[in-house]
Amino acid sequence: MTIEFLNQPCAVVDCTIEAAARAHQQQLTKPPGSLGALESVAIRLAGLQGHARPQVERVWISVFAGDHGVAEEGVSAFPQAVTGEMVRNFAHGGAAISVLASELGASLEVVNLGTVNDPGELPGVRRAFIASSTANFAAGEAMTPLQLQAALQAGADSVHAAKQAGAQLFIGGEMGIANTTAATALACALLRESAASLAGAGTGLDDAGIARKAAVIERGLARHRDASSPLEQLRCFGGFEIAALTGAYIAAAQSGLPVLVDGFITTAAALASVRIQPACRPWMLFSHRSHERGHARLLAALEADPLLDLNLRLGEASGAAVAVPLLRLACALHNRMATFEQAGVSNA
Amino acid sequence: MTIEFLNQPCAVVDCTIEAAARAHQQQLTKPPGSLGALESVAIRLAGLQGHARPQVERVWISVFAGDHGVAEEGVSAFPQAVTGEMVRNFAHGGAAISVLASELGASLEVVNLGTVNDPGELPGVRRAFIASSTANFAAGEAMTPLQLQAALQAGADSVHAAKQAGAQLFIGGEMGIANTTAATALACALLRESAASLAGAGTGLDDAGIARKAAVIERGLARHRDASSPLEQLRCFGGFEIAALTGAYIAAAQSGLPVLVDGFITTAAALASVRIQPACRPWMLFSHRSHERGHARLLAALEADPLLDLNLRLGEASGAAVAVPLLRLACALHNRMATFEQAGVSNA
Repeated sequence: MTIEFLNQPCAVVDCTIEAAARAHQQQLTKPPGSLGALESVAIRLAGLQGHARPQVERVWISVFAGDHGVAEEGVSAFPQAVTGEMVRNFAHGGAAISVLASELGASLEVVNLGTVNDPGELPGVRRAFIASSTANFAAGEAMTPLQLQAALQAGADSVHAAKQAGAQLFIGGEMGIANTTAATALACALLRESAASLAGAGTGLDDAGIARKAAVIERGLARHRDASSPLEQLRCFGGFEIAALTGAYIAAAQSGLPVLVDGFITTAAALASVRIQPACRPWMLFSHRSHERGHARLLAALEADPLLDLNLRLGEASGAAVAVPLLRLACALHNRMATFEQAGVSNA
Repeated sequence: MTIEFLNQPCAVVDCTIEAAARAHQQQLTKPPGSLGALESVAIRLAGLQGHARPQVERVWISVFAGDHGVAEEGVSAFPQAVTGEMVRNFAHGGAAISVLASELGASLEVVNLGTVNDPGELPGVRRAFIASSTANFAAGEAMTPLQLQAALQAGADSVHAAKQAGAQLFIGGEMGIANTTAATALACALLRESAASLAGAGTGLDDAGIARKAAVIERGLARHRDASSPLEQLRCFGGFEIAALTGAYIAAAQSGLPVLVDGFITTAAALASVRIQPACRPWMLFSHRSHERGHARLLAALEADPLLDLNLRLGEASGAAVAVPLLRLACALHNRMATFEQAGVSNA
């Protein structure tokens, strides 16, 4: 299977601007390096945006929602109806990401890729319905090739809309009951790890629940052991929303739009993206280290060092949204602090 | 020595409101606990502010500046003139904290407690000049009893001004060449630790510099080994700004104003405050884990678990300022998210 747009080249980071931004940081009235990660992220954003003075005022958030056939295995603490109910909650402004997007002045788009409990047309929700859910990956392939293609394209479409709207940063989020199970299975396949080593509590399983979930994932891994390309692994374990995130991350890198990755599920999609198209990695910033068990392993595989570690495990792009003010303050410091010379302050 | 106001009782946290806030979090449309530290901090702020819906819109930042006699021992990477130069930079808007306060819409007050290089009267700078610097603690007591009293009172005065202005959160910061040396000496005295175990790089010492700094601190610890009360230890090792922070933290707890503690030096002052007046501890929130070596030990002594870990080591209240958006977003989520019932979302 080949999907045309995935193989287009990614944009190139502007190393000259990045070096100039690094030199600029050394001139600001503070001990060199004393703003730690805030310095590095401002320098990196300068290189990605190709501007000596980076900005993240215009933030675009797309939350991709989709249901999972594997939910029938009883792997979630919540009933499957919640996916559709939460789509309605996103639209009505009551969900965490709705509140955060409004506080940040960010654009929030919800993309319904397919929910068993269908909330129908709603303001603020883009309908890109593929099917009411994926198939149960423990019993078969989660997606058909056409479904995978539609999901990847839906993610890319969101990036093009973000770019069109002048976004300076793209954030992808997800909602889907049982999607830590799908993301864990995908992570195991990509990393060649056992289910027992990566399966976690998701929305709130106890130890027995985690063991059941790991057993379901092991059945899926055995069934799809011949799926060796990252794209085939994505198709077998699925998640319409996970595939949409993958399409979005690759399209963002191709169009030179930095992305801020959220938690466990989005990081699984980020790893799939990098395995499919390695040149997209430099375009990814990482927001937080989630409480979900397998996240640390995924971050390590991506050599990612996220900004926050707040024991978050909600998804919906919420952790990435919480990190946005840090990026904005990092840019403000980079752009507005006086240099030693300007301020007449003696250097070390 | 007794200083009247230090022994006044602290305000009491409203446990009823705190319990109600905790119960409210359980009703919001997310898996319980999935917003991690953002949930705990919103609950704690509700209890401290005595409001079911906490707010940190009105933030007051006081940066206390003072010079240190111990600078003559060559313990800093920067010349002593920088303290006064930075006071001017704060006033002119070019320093990190100036940029951050402006981005946050926070009130910024700079308090000049005594600098060798005196910038004189400046807009935005409150002059509470005690002396051009403390005395070198390696050769004698850093402060006289009257100087200590004046510094503690200057900190309390800032809190009263913040309270008067309707602040919902108080942040203290500091500037003073050689003040990691003074803070480390104070921390060693309070914790009965050796200088070698706590001394760090400050604004940028190399290993030889750190060893020199530790030797100076050891001389001071030997000289003042009879100073056994926390107040006497504060006086002997000094820092006008460290004493002002101590006065501020105690006064804030007495007037029921939550404080957000910054990095290494402010945490040393926080520990001194808690040793002098243990009931002030509940009023302290901790913003970040600094890169400065001794900070982890101080945080452990205070059983503090800060929100951020970004390798910051600038001081000036900058780390606390960077954490303010997290508190604001935590409050917004707490106050504005829909409950399961309101949103018609099925619970686990």
